[in-house]
Amino acid sequence: MRIAELSRRTDVPVPTIKYYLREGLLSAGERTSHNQAQYAESHVRRLRLVKALIEVGGLSVAATREVLEKMYGPGMSPLDSVGKAQFAMTNSRPVIEDEAWEAASKQTEELIEQLGWQVRQTNPARQTLTSALATLSRLGQTEQLKLLEGYAQAARQVAQAEMELLVQEPDADALIERAIVWTALGDIVFSALRRFAQEDIAYGGSAKQ
Amino acid sequence: MRIAELSRRTDVPVPTIKYYLREGLLSAGERTSHNQAQYAESHVRRLRLVKALIEVGGLSVAATREVLEKMYGPGMSPLDSVGKAQFAMTNSRPVIEDEAWEAASKQTEELIEQLGWQVRQTNPARQTLTSALATLSRLGQTEQLKLLEGYAQAARQVAQAEMELLVQEPDADALIERAIVWTALGDIVFSALRRFAQEDIAYGGSAKQ
Repeated sequence: MRIAELSRRTDVPVPTIKYYLREGLLSAGERTSHNQAQYAESHVRRLRLVKALIEVGGLSVAATREVLEKMYGPGMSPLDSVGKAQFAMTNSRPVIEDEAWEAASKQTEELIEQLGWQVRQTNPARQTLTSALATLSRLGQTEQLKLLEGYAQAARQVAQAEMELLVQEPDADALIERAIVWTALGDIVFSALRRFAQEDIAYGGSAKQ
Repeated sequence: MRIAELSRRTDVPVPTIKYYLREGLLSAGERTSHNQAQYAESHVRRLRLVKALIEVGGLSVAATREVLEKMYGPGMSPLDSVGKAQFAMTNSRPVIEDEAWEAASKQTEELIEQLGWQVRQTNPARQTLTSALATLSRLGQTEQLKLLEGYAQAARQVAQAEMELLVQEPDADALIERAIVWTALGDIVFSALRRFAQEDIAYGGSAKQ
């Protein structure tokens, strides 16, 4: 198909597709004349994935490129590809190495220790959690630390269900794609459902548990 | 204190403070000469809050201004202030009114109905969830819908604990501030813990439940 058709199928404007091509998020089509190229179904699929990561997952073009590189890195098991792509899609946070940061970093270590989870030192989510805990401490809102264990239990619960569903997918590429999309979308889905629950608890109260 | 001291206390650079003053995120200090102003402890507290919302919560300057306006809106109960500020901090998503969106919107309604939760039509998280579900459908990843109910249970679990902790705060302004900060940070904390749990389940497996 030509670029106009690719645009129609994916709802991505032609100039945006050209931008993604230049940025290496999409491989070039097969050139049929000096100013025309043909695109395949694989381009439709890839473009939909890029669009999901950028528009809904909120990833930058640079982060998306890195995620794609890790997703389809050669010689890795599907699980390793997913792991590396997940690391790439976790925003690194500005580190301010003050007292609050030091204390928060220790709280992160202690929480992981207490949970008994195996989390690599290189997992960028360590920094994400430390940053959030340091912010709480700078604002004097340390009461909220009491919520951490309940959060960890809830997170484990959903991660377990996710993994069980994921391993039912027999195709390695499809498995990786699903894991990556759901990593980004799952955060958003949880955030929306938490807002729903907050509203129901604050105003409704009559809800079924 | 002078602006340099305000900057030192909050770790926010002076030019950024001036920008926030121009943008109305921070009230003006008390002018002591034509080019100097004095700032109070209330400025330190407000600036730390603004910094948390922008740097860690990832809010835009415009969204932060709206959240602050709602937080301190006159004549509202603390719970109403929190609710309005929460609405303001939920990103609205680009709506593409295609078939996938229509179907996703119906799925959102059905899920709320099934949960028996009272969620207002104006809650912007409805749009957030619909957008995520529409993306899944466009990518052909509808298997993930099976995870929604578990997500909802986990979300309700943490929201309940949050609310119980919150209502222990006797001061109305402090209650609002805590609710808002934790709304933003809670999403980030959950996301980090979910990444931890995913890694532990994928590679560790020996974790305590």
